[in-house]
Amino acid sequence: MEITIQERLGQRVKALRVKKGWSQEKLAELTGFHRTYIGMVERGERNISLQNIFSLSKQFGLSLEELFKDL
Amino acid sequence: MEITIQERLGQRVKALRVKKGWSQEKLAELTGFHRTYIGMVERGERNISLQNIFSLSKQFGLSLEELFKDL
Repeated sequence: MEITIQERLGQRVKALRVKKGWSQEKLAELTGFHRTYIGMVERGERNISLQNIFSLSKQFGLSLEELFKDL
Repeated sequence: MEITIQERLGQRVKALRVKKGWSQEKLAELTGFHRTYIGMVERGERNISLQNIFSLSKQFGLSLEELFKDL
């Protein structure tokens, strides 16, 4: 079964969050998103918008190009 | 005035479309989006979703990393 682009980005977000040592609650606080939204994004359950992708990339200190690297 | 991420992606999409020699109608046909939606995306008026960004990148034969390069 193929992994969708939503799932691939979700896994990337989770890996970056864990690397930062942040809980979902912490990332939610930093971005202003709800914690349950973060969980849904990480599980690939949300078709996240450009603005929200951009907000996440900024929190991780990455450009969008870097966020999507090899995805 | 700062150019928003929506406008930057819109300009990228337009530049890639023009480089391919495609009209907005042609890109609409290829992606299944409405022509007016393509226009709005190119003008940075839409907070486009990951799935739709991915559809555009596939039509241009680019990865998401390439689509967002230096954006």
